Amino acid sequence: MNLLQQTLEKIAGLDQEITAMARERVDNLIKPAKSLGKLEHLAVQLAGITRNLKPDFNQKAVIVMAGDHGVYVEGVTNNPQEVTAAQTLNFAKGLTGVCVIGQVSGAKVVPVDIGINVEMPADAGIILRKVKNGTDNMAIGPAMTREEAIKAIEVGIDIANEQIEKGVNLLGTGEMGIGNTTPSTAILSVLLHCDPLGITGRGAGLGKGGIEHKAEVIRRAIHLNQPNPDDVIDILAKVGGLEIGGMAGVMLGAAANRIPVVIDGFISTIAAIIAVGLEPKAKDYMIASHASQEPGAKRASEFLGIEPMLLMDMCLGEGSGAALAFPIIDAACSMLKNMPTFAEAGMEI
Amino acid sequence: MNLLQQTLEKIAGLDQEITAMARERVDNLIKPAKSLGKLEHLAVQLAGITRNLKPDFNQKAVIVMAGDHGVYVEGVTNNPQEVTAAQTLNFAKGLTGVCVIGQVSGAKVVPVDIGINVEMPADAGIILRKVKNGTDNMAIGPAMTREEAIKAIEVGIDIANEQIEKGVNLLGTGEMGIGNTTPSTAILSVLLHCDPLGITGRGAGLGKGGIEHKAEVIRRAIHLNQPNPDDVIDILAKVGGLEIGGMAGVMLGAAANRIPVVIDGFISTIAAIIAVGLEPKAKDYMIASHASQEPGAKRASEFLGIEPMLLMDMCLGEGSGAALAFPIIDAACSMLKNMPTFAEAGMEI
Repeated sequence: MNLLQQTLEKIAGLDQEITAMARERVDNLIKPAKSLGKLEHLAVQLAGITRNLKPDFNQKAVIVMAGDHGVYVEGVTNNPQEVTAAQTLNFAKGLTGVCVIGQVSGAKVVPVDIGINVEMPADAGIILRKVKNGTDNMAIGPAMTREEAIKAIEVGIDIANEQIEKGVNLLGTGEMGIGNTTPSTAILSVLLHCDPLGITGRGAGLGKGGIEHKAEVIRRAIHLNQPNPDDVIDILAKVGGLEIGGMAGVMLGAAANRIPVVIDGFISTIAAIIAVGLEPKAKDYMIASHASQEPGAKRASEFLGIEPMLLMDMCLGEGSGAALAFPIIDAACSMLKNMPTFAEAGMEI
Repeated sequence: MNLLQQTLEKIAGLDQEITAMARERVDNLIKPAKSLGKLEHLAVQLAGITRNLKPDFNQKAVIVMAGDHGVYVEGVTNNPQEVTAAQTLNFAKGLTGVCVIGQVSGAKVVPVDIGINVEMPADAGIILRKVKNGTDNMAIGPAMTREEAIKAIEVGIDIANEQIEKGVNLLGTGEMGIGNTTPSTAILSVLLHCDPLGITGRGAGLGKGGIEHKAEVIRRAIHLNQPNPDDVIDILAKVGGLEIGGMAGVMLGAAANRIPVVIDGFISTIAAIIAVGLEPKAKDYMIASHASQEPGAKRASEFLGIEPMLLMDMCLGEGSGAALAFPIIDAACSMLKNMPTFAEAGMEI
């Protein structure tokens, strides 16, 4: 638990002095007080994160964690499991949803094999950090061991550290993993102490048994594995996913390096909840992007306590919502950098 | 009514053939069907507007209509009326909220004096098209004559035509006018046949009498002027504003030229309702941007029937929300241009 523990210990909150200075400045810009809403909160947060009153994020990246799920065999989705590997190859080629959105917002996409159930080619532009060949079927036993869960988080930390080392100063999280709304909903169900049915959605497409069957599989997995609701690593290990752990690690790595990290939709929000469960101060570095259509997404955002900014009815995953939110972050920075205060503009109000 | 009538007659709906082709393509891109939500609708709409399966908007502009309001003297706001002129000068200098957001999304800002109550300098980068020196006080008589209302709409059409002639291919609407949530709420109140109190908000800051007084002024203006709910020009003239008419004109001009136009918040949405009241097909060219915090905004969006994409708690006006939505439009275009279909990617699903 060395890297994880070190990372958690490195995470400090926002710089209080710079945060207060940024708030003072934002309150005095030439506009009615508070009229730019979340853009103002974002500007203050970004200043407090970076310790810079005029932050600028010129190297953006969405880290896409890809992994498979043993629970797939229970028929929770109608998508072929091969899509996980196929789409991961497409990330590297710049062809998927997150890639084409990232092209607009100036974000590179970094695909990581953290647990695809087939071997991926070494020369395809994918970072190979497989913890195992997909999780085990949580409907008949734990999805992974506690050690594997920690390893998945540490892979995420490693990747974040590497990207930041290369100059990336704004991160987003994304995932690819056929079946992964099932473990995400399981994690949320444990945390909310609620039956899965009310928070189970279609994901990318339901299996033959529909939502009832998907919820029943989740119910069975929770009943069988008895994850401890107060131990997020236990929950992640027993009913989670490798890419979910990986994304939690990316968020912790970002926070430890004082780099803001944009959360994508439902599955990323579940990862954010795990990261915050390990270190509450990590939340200061998080920015929510879009409100996913998955029914659990709203509950997850409320549990995390960060409201999304985009209402796009999207549910693709991949980090597509995170990439779409990057220009909003640029706008918050532009406000800090290019907008004068009433005093600077010579306006006495 | 020559220019207005000609413009209305020029407005045709979406190109049905291209729209169908775009929908077919979007449905076959390498993602679960519908998973990019509003981005998909937007892509189809943009193709149908431009008659181009790979539209690209490389010249964006937000037209900001500035005008004053006679009803200001009733104490509906605590902001000095001079702010209208002062901020209009700041638009030309690139200093205001919409300008700094536009800098991120590559949009120029085009300020227009359509009715500021003082003379504006000729050399300040403001387009001077004053219809009159602010509206008259609608609490004691009509805000303007029917001819002035039509003139305001025609100024908007003219400006849209001029910008499109110069190469602009994506428009946004914005406004500046201290007190202008009052006429906007009055217009909405007439259209919804409801008492103004439930839809009256703070605007940029309330006068001493608070919301009750503001609603009472609106109630009085409607009672006195008796605008015809079935005649949007009559409503605009009696309880509207010059900048509201100007924005409606920009939207009609955009539609007549097959150029998409992004609606900002509450006041722009009211202008959109007037434009659609004159020609329902104009709606096909409209894109809603953000959900303003003004209580009337939600009702106005529902009445118009276009759901916003951004949930930013903003209420600045100026076209700031429109400018913030431009990158989303670029993302929809990038999806059409850069994302392959399953067949093109050689994936058999």
